[in-house]
Amino acid sequence: MPAISERARLVPPSPIRKLVPYANAAKARGKKVLHLNIGQPDLPTPPEFWEAIQSAGIQVLDYTDSAGMPAFREAYARFYTEVYGIPLESKHFLTTTGGSEALLFAFLTLFSPEDELIVIEPTYANYIGMGWATGVILRPVQSHIEDDFALPAPEVLESAITPRTRGILLCNPSNPTGKLYSEVEVRKIAEICSRHGLYLISDESYRDYCYDGQKFFSALEINGAEEFVVVVDTLSKRYSACGARVGALISRNTTIIDTALKWAQARLAPPTLGQIGGMALLSLPKSHYDYVRDTFQKRRDTLIEGLSSIPGVKVATVQGAFYLMPQLPVADSDAFAQWMLESFDVDGTTVMVAPGTGFFSEPERGKTLVRIAYVLDVPLLEQAVEILRAALNIYAREEVPVL
Amino acid sequence: MPAISERARLVPPSPIRKLVPYANAAKARGKKVLHLNIGQPDLPTPPEFWEAIQSAGIQVLDYTDSAGMPAFREAYARFYTEVYGIPLESKHFLTTTGGSEALLFAFLTLFSPEDELIVIEPTYANYIGMGWATGVILRPVQSHIEDDFALPAPEVLESAITPRTRGILLCNPSNPTGKLYSEVEVRKIAEICSRHGLYLISDESYRDYCYDGQKFFSALEINGAEEFVVVVDTLSKRYSACGARVGALISRNTTIIDTALKWAQARLAPPTLGQIGGMALLSLPKSHYDYVRDTFQKRRDTLIEGLSSIPGVKVATVQGAFYLMPQLPVADSDAFAQWMLESFDVDGTTVMVAPGTGFFSEPERGKTLVRIAYVLDVPLLEQAVEILRAALNIYAREEVPVL
Repeated sequence: MPAISERARLVPPSPIRKLVPYANAAKARGKKVLHLNIGQPDLPTPPEFWEAIQSAGIQVLDYTDSAGMPAFREAYARFYTEVYGIPLESKHFLTTTGGSEALLFAFLTLFSPEDELIVIEPTYANYIGMGWATGVILRPVQSHIEDDFALPAPEVLESAITPRTRGILLCNPSNPTGKLYSEVEVRKIAEICSRHGLYLISDESYRDYCYDGQKFFSALEINGAEEFVVVVDTLSKRYSACGARVGALISRNTTIIDTALKWAQARLAPPTLGQIGGMALLSLPKSHYDYVRDTFQKRRDTLIEGLSSIPGVKVATVQGAFYLMPQLPVADSDAFAQWMLESFDVDGTTVMVAPGTGFFSEPERGKTLVRIAYVLDVPLLEQAVEILRAALNIYAREEVPVL
Repeated sequence: MPAISERARLVPPSPIRKLVPYANAAKARGKKVLHLNIGQPDLPTPPEFWEAIQSAGIQVLDYTDSAGMPAFREAYARFYTEVYGIPLESKHFLTTTGGSEALLFAFLTLFSPEDELIVIEPTYANYIGMGWATGVILRPVQSHIEDDFALPAPEVLESAITPRTRGILLCNPSNPTGKLYSEVEVRKIAEICSRHGLYLISDESYRDYCYDGQKFFSALEINGAEEFVVVVDTLSKRYSACGARVGALISRNTTIIDTALKWAQARLAPPTLGQIGGMALLSLPKSHYDYVRDTFQKRRDTLIEGLSSIPGVKVATVQGAFYLMPQLPVADSDAFAQWMLESFDVDGTTVMVAPGTGFFSEPERGKTLVRIAYVLDVPLLEQAVEILRAALNIYAREEVPVL
């Protein structure tokens, strides 16, 4: 047969999903698996979503405009203006098939192959995949659990800039660390971008998840940064509607939106039902966001308290998203995560986590880290902590080699 | 501001969608527009789609597996086995967000940047966009209206092969020409691929639309071609469900499917509702396909007869899909299509067509061609023909310059 392409051979599998076959095998053997590996909120999708689809009375499920339904984009702009206090118009929104496609379009529109993009590690694993897909080279700058994954100093960020650097990609709050970058930090990054003629891609998928009374500051709020700020957004996490596959590429620079539209045309249209239901979600009252945030803040508290009480586990203090990236007393988080699925349970239940290796360009850096998504209710999180405690107790003593 | 990437500047807009602003303006002025520009069938989406979503009783609209729901892939395999008589298993299917994403994954998985892919022109415009997105270079071989867009001779196809050629992309039946390639022709292309170590990507999105009793022959039916044949499929046209955004990349070469899964993981999952409704569609009785085919055959007959009766219009005899690509007595089909929207109507109604230029790597080749999708009922098609007749009668005499 002809060869598989080099990029397809080299792109790593998702650290969040690569252990799925082991989880499926465990379930087939009758084991219960608590899924902390994937950022899929467990809250019910608001009923308004289903009511909107029902009442639309669709006869022909047709394509929408490539940029999304005009009414959907208007609802998105109104949502940003009224709920977030960021005045935007529908021309600033390109509707995408989830935040993932917004990233793809941003990479294709802003960067040429071999261009460099600075990311802060640990980083969202799929940025690495999108880099491979588009030929964009990710230049990692490290953040550290010892500093609660604080923003690297400006001089460290600037030292990563080369003649091929075209942008900085910030995930705020961060997937996978949960770090919430402050207004001061976001402005610092924008200043660097401005000074060096770089784009700032701000992935704000988790902006509704900010705890301890912290206010989220969007890159869209910076005066003077309109030309170079591009925001990646999604309805997935905000409304527990990951399967709707609807998000947006947002920029006040309409040249970017209008140019990205050509990529959008090449894939025809985003999902129609996600947009119809999504319009109703974007009109939910503010109480929705308070409820979601309060629910997840309790979970974070539970998880940090529980994990911190396990000997040898180190946890950062973080205030955003619904992820934690603890350091475990293991030498190989991939082997440990696989062992949890294959060989360990407490009364028939085990826990699935995402190994840290996939959140770094150099996987070695993540060997002792795992990503935990706190997308289960408090009692289940408490159970998950006890299972992890028991597992680490055995594993640390035996360091069971896998395979 | 930083520059837009070169690829984003150079990728052409969709010829099917670039005139949408003119159509919207015409509608805003109270004009009725008959949309023959876009391949969006007008038949109702079968009610089974909605019933399946309703009865699923979904609480949390969550991600599916990146490869698609196991039950959806099984339904797809059963459909191919039972309805098409092509025995396949779910491991041969990667669920995608429409056929568009199957193309994207095929390009990324099979080809490296600068690799060459042979396409037959006129070609589906979005292949050109996907080429720009992935760095794959399309090498066109021409088919001609004078030969009813017949397959170019094998020696012509082979003369396009260079050391960088990695595949041939066939759209069968063809969007935009409506040409249905016979078993003999499909086998010829597969032989060339086999001899030269090339992949054969067969886009079979319109395989249910074959007229005059012609039987469709899939590239998946060729013994010995299992390793290098990749099929692009979609539910969009088969079930009038374009907005569901569900399709598949299909290959008996599971290395291709398993490798493409990594790109699928990087975008998380295809739309959940499209899969749930789609499972029901894939179980429809065979009478559904007969009904759809018979409906569209009548439309094709109407359109060919009508167009052929307009002085100066040349139409190929074709037996598939729901497109025709007539040659019109105009010097610039872009200008003509725009003029139809901006300055012409018959009793308040006009027609929107897709200019032929966008279906060629060298737009000049399509200056006298337009693509017409016969996605309206017979009386509306008859009306569209009369509007075109009247428009050409005026336009040919005046050759109104646009802009």
